[in-house]
Amino acid sequence: MGKGGMSHDNNGDDDGGENLAAWLVAQNTLKIQPFQLPPLGPHDVRVRMKAVGICGSDVHYLKTLRCAHFVVKEPMVIGHECAGVIEEVGSDVKSLVPGDRVALEPGISCWRCEYCKEGRYNLCPDMKFFATPPVHGSLANQVVHPADLCFKLPDNVSLEEGAMWPIGLVTLLAARAFGAPKVIIADVDDHRLSVAKSLGADGVIKVSRSIQDADEEVLLIQKAMGALIDVTFDCAGFDKTMSTALTATRAGGKVCLVGMGHNEMTVPLTPAAAREVDVIGIFRYKNTWPLCLEFIRSGKIDVKPLITHRFGFSQKEVEDAFETSARGGDAIKVMFNL
Amino acid sequence: MGKGGMSHDNNGDDDGGENLAAWLVAQNTLKIQPFQLPPLGPHDVRVRMKAVGICGSDVHYLKTLRCAHFVVKEPMVIGHECAGVIEEVGSDVKSLVPGDRVALEPGISCWRCEYCKEGRYNLCPDMKFFATPPVHGSLANQVVHPADLCFKLPDNVSLEEGAMWPIGLVTLLAARAFGAPKVIIADVDDHRLSVAKSLGADGVIKVSRSIQDADEEVLLIQKAMGALIDVTFDCAGFDKTMSTALTATRAGGKVCLVGMGHNEMTVPLTPAAAREVDVIGIFRYKNTWPLCLEFIRSGKIDVKPLITHRFGFSQKEVEDAFETSARGGDAIKVMFNL
Amino acid sequence: MGKGGMSHDNNGDDDGGENLAAWLVAQNTLKIQPFQLPPLGPHDVRVRMKAVGICGSDVHYLKTLRCAHFVVKEPMVIGHECAGVIEEVGSDVKSLVPGDRVALEPGISCWRCEYCKEGRYNLCPDMKFFATPPVHGSLANQVVHPADLCFKLPDNVSLEEGAMWPIGLVTLLAARAFGAPKVIIADVDDHRLSVAKSLGADGVIKVSRSIQDADEEVLLIQKAMGALIDVTFDCAGFDKTMSTALTATRAGGKVCLVGMGHNEMTVPLTPAAAREVDVIGIFRYKNTWPLCLEFIRSGKIDVKPLITHRFGFSQKEVEDAFETSARGGDAIKVMFNL
Amino acid sequence: MGKGGMSHDNNGDDDGGENLAAWLVAQNTLKIQPFQLPPLGPHDVRVRMKAVGICGSDVHYLKTLRCAHFVVKEPMVIGHECAGVIEEVGSDVKSLVPGDRVALEPGISCWRCEYCKEGRYNLCPDMKFFATPPVHGSLANQVVHPADLCFKLPDNVSLEEGAMWPIGLVTLLAARAFGAPKVIIADVDDHRLSVAKSLGADGVIKVSRSIQDADEEVLLIQKAMGALIDVTFDCAGFDKTMSTALTATRAGGKVCLVGMGHNEMTVPLTPAAAREVDVIGIFRYKNTWPLCLEFIRSGKIDVKPLITHRFGFSQKEVEDAFETSARGGDAIKVMFNL
Repeated sequence: MGKGGMSHDNNGDDDGGENLAAWLVAQNTLKIQPFQLPPLGPHDVRVRMKAVGICGSDVHYLKTLRCAHFVVKEPMVIGHECAGVIEEVGSDVKSLVPGDRVALEPGISCWRCEYCKEGRYNLCPDMKFFATPPVHGSLANQVVHPADLCFKLPDNVSLEEGAMWPIGLVTLLAARAFGAPKVIIADVDDHRLSVAKSLGADGVIKVSRSIQDADEEVLLIQKAMGALIDVTFDCAGFDKTMSTALTATRAGGKVCLVGMGHNEMTVPLTPAAAREVDVIGIFRYKNTWPLCLEFIRSGKIDVKPLITHRFGFSQKEVEDAFETSARGGDAIKVMFNL
Repeated sequence: MGKGGMSHDNNGDDDGGENLAAWLVAQNTLKIQPFQLPPLGPHDVRVRMKAVGICGSDVHYLKTLRCAHFVVKEPMVIGHECAGVIEEVGSDVKSLVPGDRVALEPGISCWRCEYCKEGRYNLCPDMKFFATPPVHGSLANQVVHPADLCFKLPDNVSLEEGAMWPIGLVTLLAARAFGAPKVIIADVDDHRLSVAKSLGADGVIKVSRSIQDADEEVLLIQKAMGALIDVTFDCAGFDKTMSTALTATRAGGKVCLVGMGHNEMTVPLTPAAAREVDVIGIFRYKNTWPLCLEFIRSGKIDVKPLITHRFGFSQKEVEDAFETSARGGDAIKVMFNL
Repeated sequence: MGKGGMSHDNNGDDDGGENLAAWLVAQNTLKIQPFQLPPLGPHDVRVRMKAVGICGSDVHYLKTLRCAHFVVKEPMVIGHECAGVIEEVGSDVKSLVPGDRVALEPGISCWRCEYCKEGRYNLCPDMKFFATPPVHGSLANQVVHPADLCFKLPDNVSLEEGAMWPIGLVTLLAARAFGAPKVIIADVDDHRLSVAKSLGADGVIKVSRSIQDADEEVLLIQKAMGALIDVTFDCAGFDKTMSTALTATRAGGKVCLVGMGHNEMTVPLTPAAAREVDVIGIFRYKNTWPLCLEFIRSGKIDVKPLITHRFGFSQKEVEDAFETSARGGDAIKVMFNL
Repeated sequence: MGKGGMSHDNNGDDDGGENLAAWLVAQNTLKIQPFQLPPLGPHDVRVRMKAVGICGSDVHYLKTLRCAHFVVKEPMVIGHECAGVIEEVGSDVKSLVPGDRVALEPGISCWRCEYCKEGRYNLCPDMKFFATPPVHGSLANQVVHPADLCFKLPDNVSLEEGAMWPIGLVTLLAARAFGAPKVIIADVDDHRLSVAKSLGADGVIKVSRSIQDADEEVLLIQKAMGALIDVTFDCAGFDKTMSTALTATRAGGKVCLVGMGHNEMTVPLTPAAAREVDVIGIFRYKNTWPLCLEFIRSGKIDVKPLITHRFGFSQKEVEDAFETSARGGDAIKVMFNL
């Protein structure tokens, strides 16, 4: 796309300058390039992005061009954890006005299938989700999005907070916010354990990656809890973590499988079932934004400590940010400020 | 044990003659021998057994002296699926009188632990269950049992029907009784499939024991259903059956793991969880008898066709009955008439 | 609308002749008049109506021009229980083709509010529902409707059956289909009780309209059940019926309030709450069609006996049909065949 | 009861001196008199009472000799909110030893009825509950109680805290502990509203006792919430409070009826049901102690500010304490220290 006349062909032109986005153009290659917005429908809004976080799946796409069964076949704008400011609203939008600060729920479901109608719209097979091929993402100056998926931020919630969403350590914060009287965190990583402690975990247990240690670690975890364990979240999803979860949880309890490390799993499922330990699956999120924003507003959840690195939106900074996120270590959440 | 003095030492004496029972005395060895009853407590009843079925776990104990983590270390009376006639009631029993025909729920829970108090008494760690070592079973002329675990049979329900309880094909009958609009049965055994068909299955699918066939069989099962599959019961509990169940079930559906074939399982748990297919465990039963008796009374469930073989209560017949049950083949439920 | 050329201006013209509908033009006045169809959207279908039932709310609108807080201010096409044959499908419709026989779910929800997103779309405040002012109904030769609200009829389900939906006696049929082992019906009307009996009620109790008889009637109902009553549906909604329901239901049970006779109710709510009898509200329906069609297909529910009167679609027949429905007596469901 | 030698006949004798209790002997008359303990069963413990609170029902019995359908016909020991120290344990008790500080759950259910077996033991029709006639209460030096109903206090939870249980303002604390992001309290009493504010209510609304003000107050309550109201607790139980609750709660929400002011209620139940607002009843408590103790231990709930008055255990102090509690005003929880 040439200089000069280009912006004349671009929706972004009349709407606040050229619209740039971070395109995943090849394996390990991100390019900041123009991104033409779709027309604004009657129920849509145009949002100027202000904060975009990097998620593990973004990194996965960058490194492998795939995630689960999704494959990037055409250049795709990356990013889906985001918040921004409304610049324009469609003709039928009554809930928002230009200037409103909003967090964006990234998936647009069809509302015609039985999943949508049953309130499990996150399972919609026709979901159009930011940065899940072939749908473009939101690491861009501007995006067009349905108004009902843009949630106004309370005055005391920042745009960065609005761009943070349920992953990893946030499970700890959510468990506390929902009233779990005691939360124990087990992890292989000392840094994450110390963050967990600072976020209010009642106890932390350093575990190994070896399945041989599982039985002993189960006892340590149960002892740290000091009571039967009602619910366990496996946020990693490996044979060992799931075996530990199934064994540590009380009869009649629940194990929620959040992480997606292994596909095929070898785990003691039968003894768990015979103790009526149920395995509960979860996919992305539904109806999450309003409650989470209220938790942040009221101070019941504080996600700010999770933001460890911040970057601007230049070619070099985008590359550095993704490298920082991919490296792990002390990087928990890497955030763009646009 | 000869006639004469012995019966003087035996509770059974004043209470209707010598009380004999089928004792598991060694691997593969059952002996009919006297069985002394405990004293009758104020909330207990004494029941003359009339019908006792053989369960897979009974056969398992006979062949191996163990089942799951339970081990037979002392001679133990076998049997737990049973019905009989009340002969004597304790001083505080108001719900039953001698002559009442009753089905017996076989497990006595502690009512002091948190499982019992939460209504999940089947998970009670102090459960005393017929023929689960070291607790004696009910294949005997008489047993003493709490009155609240003896359920009066409706007039049109036979003692044999009262002794039948939830296993295998009964899951089909229960699913229909609870309103499942369509039920498809998959099995490796032609005979069981034909019984399933005669019991009202909407479709039957012959499957193999090879995991390689699973994908194709999933498609056959889904096609036979002709709609999304909401709930799957895995009544076998092997890698292949569970993998098939997890894959065949709709997003947002449930797989109930009933069978206990494998202990450690290798199954595609993560893709199932990512479609929010939950795995639900089940252990024995709770609050089952009143509703099941009502289903049988009203004709919504007919368990009689499941009784394929009947035996009396002599040493030889007990041995033959267990051999018949162990052989499988056309033997579905083997029943003693005492 | 001008004489003569009118049909040339009418969508109905090219699409199968002039489209006529039954308009509620004034209190107690229905007129068959032309009804112009809206344009067919990409996800819409055009349906030729074949069977339309009269609902109590239709009669209520005719007699009073209102129902609950809805008021008819402009002429409105009546009718909402309906089935027909697809004549044309929108450009994005893949689930249906012309010639398909379908039942129509009558409400179009917004899919943008939190009720819709939680799967309780029947509570959507922006619901557009057939014959609920100012939305037109479906007693017409043709209607345009979203394809996802048109459910294909199984081959053995008639168009008339497709037009029947959950009211009054259907609660009995649904309770049985969902597995209720025993159902007792109480009513003031001998004819309805005899229909209930023929539809399979396990017992029927004639009750009075006097609140003084309630205590005695509760005992009769409980005796007829012969067991604790888990769930009671109040399909009338008066002080007496609700008081009876609250008192007759077991501790820990549920009363579902379906009928809407009284607005303000004087009932013994506190003693019921102190026995943990919950009062469950219900509004219209959601996700009902696929399951109901399966119940009818499989023979678990037979709604045909409920159709007591049939009429054609002329001015006189429409008037007669509504009079028949309004009179009650032996008229249970009055059906138009278009 | 004879002079002098009496204590020789008394269980209390060998077990730590004469056992005195507060007996309700006539309307408005409490007397401190000896109270003979029952024998200690194998699963029982003997507890020296240390803290006993006065509940509204205690005052009701004192003033009227009745509460709901319970009538005091014989002298009865009063009191049921209590905590103390274990002095002796039965032969089969393994969970407690002398010296343990415990809170007492006051109801002993039968564990033989279907309510108990379903986990709803609070609905047991044969419940034996402290100070519910004809069962004696616990305002005594010592009581004998089942060990499984005595819950060990964490080290940082005082005996007084152990004697506090769910009523009135505690609903606010519990709602917060369970994760309610925002809680609004409406009351007619300025003092209680100020306590509510100090306990962490997000907003308080002064309401009147006049039903005419209900509509306006509903708007004030909804405005204070600033979002749809998911759940409302009616802790009073009058026509006006329940009407307000039913109207203020969002479609699809729940109203929990806790208070028991009126028996027969006149409320807009039908419009609430037509918005699928469910009415949920509650009776006493079940499985409450372990979780509440954990909430107190962890600091998520602080009940100490609710204790406004303390008294010793002399005849005069007992009389004064009940007068203080009956007067209301600034008395929230009145506590005995024995």
